[in-house]
Amino acid sequence: MCCIYRDLGKEFGQWLDWVLEEAEVYDYGRYPAKGMGVWLPYGFKIRRNVVELLRSLLDSTGHEEILLPLLIPENILAKESEHVKGFENEVYWVTHGGLQPLDVKLALRPTSETPLSYMESYWVKSYKQLPKKYYQVVSIFRYETKATRAMLRVREVTTFKEAHTLHEDFTDAERQVREAIDIYRRFFDELGIPYLVSKRPEWDKFAGAIYTIAFDAMMPDGKMLQIGTVHNLGQNFTKAFEVWIQKKDQSIDYAWQTSYGISERVIATLLAVHGDKKGLVLPFRVAPIQVVVIPIPAGGDNVKKYVVNEAIKLGECLKKAGLREYVDLRDDITPGEKFNIWELRGVPLRIEIGPREVKEGHVTVFRRDLRAREKVPREELVDRLKGLGEAIDNNLKNRAWGAFRERILRTNNVQLARKHLRGGGVVEMPWCGKPECAEKLAEVLNADVLGTPLDPYEVPANEKCPLCGHKAVAYLRLANKY
Amino acid sequence: MCCIYRDLGKEFGQWLDWVLEEAEVYDYGRYPAKGMGVWLPYGFKIRRNVVELLRSLLDSTGHEEILLPLLIPENILAKESEHVKGFENEVYWVTHGGLQPLDVKLALRPTSETPLSYMESYWVKSYKQLPKKYYQVVSIFRYETKATRAMLRVREVTTFKEAHTLHEDFTDAERQVREAIDIYRRFFDELGIPYLVSKRPEWDKFAGAIYTIAFDAMMPDGKMLQIGTVHNLGQNFTKAFEVWIQKKDQSIDYAWQTSYGISERVIATLLAVHGDKKGLVLPFRVAPIQVVVIPIPAGGDNVKKYVVNEAIKLGECLKKAGLREYVDLRDDITPGEKFNIWELRGVPLRIEIGPREVKEGHVTVFRRDLRAREKVPREELVDRLKGLGEAIDNNLKNRAWGAFRERILRTNNVQLARKHLRGGGVVEMPWCGKPECAEKLAEVLNADVLGTPLDPYEVPANEKCPLCGHKAVAYLRLANKY
Repeated sequence: MCCIYRDLGKEFGQWLDWVLEEAEVYDYGRYPAKGMGVWLPYGFKIRRNVVELLRSLLDSTGHEEILLPLLIPENILAKESEHVKGFENEVYWVTHGGLQPLDVKLALRPTSETPLSYMESYWVKSYKQLPKKYYQVVSIFRYETKATRAMLRVREVTTFKEAHTLHEDFTDAERQVREAIDIYRRFFDELGIPYLVSKRPEWDKFAGAIYTIAFDAMMPDGKMLQIGTVHNLGQNFTKAFEVWIQKKDQSIDYAWQTSYGISERVIATLLAVHGDKKGLVLPFRVAPIQVVVIPIPAGGDNVKKYVVNEAIKLGECLKKAGLREYVDLRDDITPGEKFNIWELRGVPLRIEIGPREVKEGHVTVFRRDLRAREKVPREELVDRLKGLGEAIDNNLKNRAWGAFRERILRTNNVQLARKHLRGGGVVEMPWCGKPECAEKLAEVLNADVLGTPLDPYEVPANEKCPLCGHKAVAYLRLANKY
Repeated sequence: MCCIYRDLGKEFGQWLDWVLEEAEVYDYGRYPAKGMGVWLPYGFKIRRNVVELLRSLLDSTGHEEILLPLLIPENILAKESEHVKGFENEVYWVTHGGLQPLDVKLALRPTSETPLSYMESYWVKSYKQLPKKYYQVVSIFRYETKATRAMLRVREVTTFKEAHTLHEDFTDAERQVREAIDIYRRFFDELGIPYLVSKRPEWDKFAGAIYTIAFDAMMPDGKMLQIGTVHNLGQNFTKAFEVWIQKKDQSIDYAWQTSYGISERVIATLLAVHGDKKGLVLPFRVAPIQVVVIPIPAGGDNVKKYVVNEAIKLGECLKKAGLREYVDLRDDITPGEKFNIWELRGVPLRIEIGPREVKEGHVTVFRRDLRAREKVPREELVDRLKGLGEAIDNNLKNRAWGAFRERILRTNNVQLARKHLRGGGVVEMPWCGKPECAEKLAEVLNADVLGTPLDPYEVPANEKCPLCGHKAVAYLRLANKY
């Protein structure tokens, strides 16, 4: 089975490479350094709309955008011992400035907990300043030695939104973890991306965190992709960097931290969960072009001219109504070719306007998600387009969630679980809580451990760990991971 | 003389360091790597508004935003020989990924002519695709060995807008140079920043360009700062990277290029040319907060509460009117302290509202640029604020240009020129056109050559080069440069 969502016409990996290139989203593989790609104009606009959506969610919840330097001196990166152990094998190092060797090696940021904690030791003194919520949208670098893949596993992640917060106590950091999860839920919901929220097992948490909560999405091949993480960092970094605060009760203590991040993988996911064999299917919310207007020339020159003028006027009217529109007036390709191009690029709505439409005072509207046409009278057009935009986003979200839920199976039967995983998806199995049982289960199922549900639903008393037979304390989620 | 614009209360360098820190714009000098700083939330918002203004000018003139990787393989950077000679001594090199040495050294981009030309050799085939206008807003890196200085001379330029264009022939590239100059003029005009547009002398052009046009602004100490450049690159890079196109007449030729850039120096300039000893004075156009509302509590608790509520209501009303407002409700500092804080941060307009104002149905409006108060009836407030915003931007622009023009002296008298330059500013001297005379003149005046005016105004026939006595062909601009 090649796609759990809908027909991609080819294997998912091939489809993604094809659509990124053909729809002019991201040029990957031609750039002369491995694991790095170029955002093309159309792709950049998708990226921008997605990032702006995330920004608006963060800004409206008291997050402040900042920008830290890219380069982190070796001694700063090394200050938190777990952290540096987790990253030292995958950091790029700058060793020379011009022809001279540098005194201190500089790392290209893999993430910014260390330099920010260093700065926070200057900035923050009192509980009165807390909570503090910073974020930045930057490039990060990881020297991936595994096979790289456009947007999914790259060496330069060009779009990393990392948030970092500071708190007076553990309780407030816990509240922040919940807030971050809530923000991410809203973000993915706006994009119509289905997800699971799991607490990662101890051995798979972020280097330097107390625990990690992760969002996983399902790719069309049924494999899971981590698209967001939220970490409670406790006082690990504030101790290493001496971020002291005076608390309300006058005592002095280290501050508490959380951090949470989302990368351009969310854009790959956006394309993957909604796309089909004709190409992209973009939600109205983030589509660079929401409505494309295509004049259908027919008849004599005067009629053609008239139709083109009507199309231009229509475009202006849509623009005035706040819609992102484009009137495709090219005369060296046919309307049919234009249809294909804009369907490939995922434009949610297309207006076809020919002599008959002009004469009868209506237009034909085509919606990309259902590939269905309807006639709309001119005077109702703007309202109808906005309504359709909403309907498209709802439909994309619902059908993606529908397909996603179908591929999640709760069972205590190892045979069934194995069979289910072969078709792609996730299994939830009762689990005793012991790491060795989780490890063994992953081995038996030839799968990876995603973790346990964020708020573990109650496991019935008769459910036993299928390996050791002890009482289950939670369900364990397993799947094949990217 | 410490400031050609207005009283900074201290020497310009000290003032800039002071204002960046106190107004919480940019934390420089505490970051543990030299020549790199952190954009703080308030500064980030200024940066963002300035960058968005530039984006809107570029987008509306057919420029398309893209994003190229940061890392450039050594062999790509080295392809255009003049270019690599110009940059090899100031490029940061990545030599290791994790613990492994890399096969090919990777440069942190100093600018993106080389990787983009490489990609364009794949993207562009025909004159029908031209002109192409790309831009990106990114960090660039230069290993400065001179003394670094916050925003003016840094090792990581965190805000570099670089545009790159492709053309069918030289004529169209020349047209593009003019378009770029026009866009930059509009950009600096919107910010109220005075500038000179000069053609740089041959020995000071961009490495790889046919010629370079530069925008120079005057710092308060009278020294000139390059804040924008426009290059006609000819076919230098397209030949090195084999960017062939088929022309309209079916012949095959290399494409023609231009590139033009603006960095965060424009933000330093924005702060420098309008600021005063109380701190920043921001144009209304780009101020993160355009109007701050400060309740003046007086009288009993009920009256105080009433005033605070009125201030909140006022803030909501301003927000609804599309103004960027902030209501400062802190109760642990006095109104006077709030006045100082927001004046330091350059908020263009302040509303003071106390019991009397509420009762009488007006508010007191203070404008930062003139430090003047006026009473405005509540019902006229929104219109008046918008009008004042415009008036402030005009006043800032006019007074900056006034001070700027006063410091430009045209003379053929070397003594006068030397005296003028000691006070800061620019001299324009008749020049025979010979490089050796320009060099000698710079030496005699202890100044740098900015170049010649973009459209050389006619030099009267009796004007002679003060050095060799030959007929002058142009005025030569000289000044002390940052």
